Amino acid sequence: MTEEQDHGRRTAAHGSRIDAYVDRYAARATGMVASEIRALFAVASRPEVVSLAGGMPYVTALPLDAVGEIVADLVAHRGTVALQYGSAQGDLHLREHICEVMREEGIDAGPDDVVVTVGSQQALDLITRVFIDPGDVVLAEGPSYVGALGTFAAYQASVVHVAMDDEGLDPAALAETIDTLSRQGRRIKFLYTVPTFQNPAGVTLSAPRRRQVLEICRRAGVLVVEDNPYGLLGFDGEPMRALRADDADGVVYLGSFSKTLAPGFRVGWALAPHAVRDKLVLALESAVLSHSTFTQLTVGQYLATQPWREQIKHFRELYRERRDTLLGAMEALMPPGCVWTRPAGGFFVWVTLPDGLDAKAILPRAVAERVAFVPGTGFFADGSGRRNMRLSYCYPEPERIREGVRRLAGVIQQEVVMRDTFGTGSAPAHAGVDTPGPDLA
Amino acid sequence: MTEEQDHGRRTAAHGSRIDAYVDRYAARATGMVASEIRALFAVASRPEVVSLAGGMPYVTALPLDAVGEIVADLVAHRGTVALQYGSAQGDLHLREHICEVMREEGIDAGPDDVVVTVGSQQALDLITRVFIDPGDVVLAEGPSYVGALGTFAAYQASVVHVAMDDEGLDPAALAETIDTLSRQGRRIKFLYTVPTFQNPAGVTLSAPRRRQVLEICRRAGVLVVEDNPYGLLGFDGEPMRALRADDADGVVYLGSFSKTLAPGFRVGWALAPHAVRDKLVLALESAVLSHSTFTQLTVGQYLATQPWREQIKHFRELYRERRDTLLGAMEALMPPGCVWTRPAGGFFVWVTLPDGLDAKAILPRAVAERVAFVPGTGFFADGSGRRNMRLSYCYPEPERIREGVRRLAGVIQQEVVMRDTFGTGSAPAHAGVDTPGPDLA
Repeated sequence: MTEEQDHGRRTAAHGSRIDAYVDRYAARATGMVASEIRALFAVASRPEVVSLAGGMPYVTALPLDAVGEIVADLVAHRGTVALQYGSAQGDLHLREHICEVMREEGIDAGPDDVVVTVGSQQALDLITRVFIDPGDVVLAEGPSYVGALGTFAAYQASVVHVAMDDEGLDPAALAETIDTLSRQGRRIKFLYTVPTFQNPAGVTLSAPRRRQVLEICRRAGVLVVEDNPYGLLGFDGEPMRALRADDADGVVYLGSFSKTLAPGFRVGWALAPHAVRDKLVLALESAVLSHSTFTQLTVGQYLATQPWREQIKHFRELYRERRDTLLGAMEALMPPGCVWTRPAGGFFVWVTLPDGLDAKAILPRAVAERVAFVPGTGFFADGSGRRNMRLSYCYPEPERIREGVRRLAGVIQQEVVMRDTFGTGSAPAHAGVDTPGPDLA
Repeated sequence: MTEEQDHGRRTAAHGSRIDAYVDRYAARATGMVASEIRALFAVASRPEVVSLAGGMPYVTALPLDAVGEIVADLVAHRGTVALQYGSAQGDLHLREHICEVMREEGIDAGPDDVVVTVGSQQALDLITRVFIDPGDVVLAEGPSYVGALGTFAAYQASVVHVAMDDEGLDPAALAETIDTLSRQGRRIKFLYTVPTFQNPAGVTLSAPRRRQVLEICRRAGVLVVEDNPYGLLGFDGEPMRALRADDADGVVYLGSFSKTLAPGFRVGWALAPHAVRDKLVLALESAVLSHSTFTQLTVGQYLATQPWREQIKHFRELYRERRDTLLGAMEALMPPGCVWTRPAGGFFVWVTLPDGLDAKAILPRAVAERVAFVPGTGFFADGSGRRNMRLSYCYPEPERIREGVRRLAGVIQQEVVMRDTFGTGSAPAHAGVDTPGPDLA
């Protein structure tokens, strides 16, 4: 049985067996349900389907020989350390290298304030665990990273979206939202933002807006959670200065090696004010005891011995070519009435379909035509995003990207014809978690 | 700066800086505080101290050459898979091997019902996340694994301890506790138990009691969470039959490779009824997206190619010798009035001190005399355990174990003299998380 069949079987079985525990779950577990369209993403991982859904980095571009030498050397020379438990905060030498990586974005920090996490997803989980009581407000861009919304939901946060445009989060909308919520007596715990090459919108918060956002949050006493997995993957000029670079006390910064090295090690981190860092370490301990020493030492050794800046440059060039390919093909092929963002880095383009179309309803037809995307509704906590889809250009080779856009444009064109004929496109699908799993994300 | 100095500095700094976020944490975070004695465990990791505190397996006994070949081969031949995201449920082939491992304890299960987790600690975290609303009751042996109590506290569960003796959990006490709580209208979500070679008590639930415990829980509709990291590390005869082997619907089984292979990979698992498994997978996704593909494939390959049963036998013989050494030295040296358990497997001995002594208060003096243990209070949610300590024999070599017991016996003897002279021993220490971190556990 392949992993795909297994996945398909699982999803198909869902709902068909009786759940003896249905009355006993925690309140937070009620939303933990996969939607019917999840099965589609398993289909979408077949080789004949062009997946513009996935956010998987192109790890084929990595120097596998060097990585192989590092892991063999690690077991041979530091095996009894690498295979043992580590501290909950994470390996000190890795944390020192992480500080070096963050200096590329203007951050001046010491290893004592860094916590190594199981991908930056775990950092998100822990920061939410430490701050959120049920009903507390998290501010987030609309649209926002689906994995973050899943975590916020798991802690029963109330997510309030703040509008964004081509320059990122709108400071005026942010100030107004904070003002309104404060008047209503709501407890705003933090602003969650992906300021650079945002997932899913592909836009970047401009420098003047960065100052404004920090100032607004500082005045309102709202912590900023800056999630920055793509910051070093910009296509033009120097990296943007991180929000954290200009506010050490008001920002928790989340970083990751999943996109600049490899997701298979699951090494991310949080940089937090000292007292918050203490809480994160204890929360991590209760969640997983400690992260894998083996993968931490591997990543530390990679950073210590390999030309990692050159490798990131290689990734940047590779992804820039793919972005250009995607945007060029869309320009040439997409039906009138479609609009989309033009990312200056990262992995994603955000598409708005013509009025009357429903991206989630279109997905089954698209998969039948051998192309996949992620519908926009997954990136909102409030049911918005029906006319949106996220396209990613990080994984497929350029030729495949062109073919994928050709197929997708054809499907959308048919939907436009249906709408013009019947007044509506495909019927909407059911509710639930309607994004692919991590291996197909 | 060494890891130890770093840890010491962190602990010393705790409380001395002002926490700007003190009013903003979630209710669950209020208990996330390290006690003063945590700093002692950093000291206790110095080479001159004999640590009987740690639960670290003796990974020096592993075939490092074979592990080195496996990881190098993995990167060379399956690098682009091993370095990529994986499914949230975990690698299918690893799950198949996990089923083979569980068959050693009489469990008949398929890979579809297994979820791979970041150590079994994460399985504990996820099962608590899925079932526990604040105030819900978790039944647990008294004493109970400190890491589980930390997780239950993080989800604001109300832990109710059930008495145990040399045959493990007392079924009559269990039935009575359930009865009392039910009459009070309390919601009991599950029984958490380490039935085999319990941490910290070192005792094992007898076969007749296993049937009784299952029957009592089945009748009361209480889920059993069976945590079994030590089950294959028995010193006499065949492995005990797992609770899960006789009840597929009423038991969630947690397993781990941390003690039978190596903790540095952080690979554990949960085996759960189908509907619960679905929830666990989605909870895992929101917590960490997916576990490290790299470490999962490494463990899978180890199980597929190495004589893992022989390796576990080697561990068993090694730990049996150390247990014999510890028990022999205690018999010879411990002052009258001390009593302790005699484990038939696993890592731990549970000591009860003479009346009037306080193990937590004794710890600083013991560390000054270059021996460390874990005070009993950490293993209770209700403040019990003052007269108890946990001693572990897994990590130090036999000669060091003997020397450690000699030092410890001397410290306890002095405390007895103090008690007889002044009516009390050393003064009790402060509250908080008073167990060592994972690297020193």
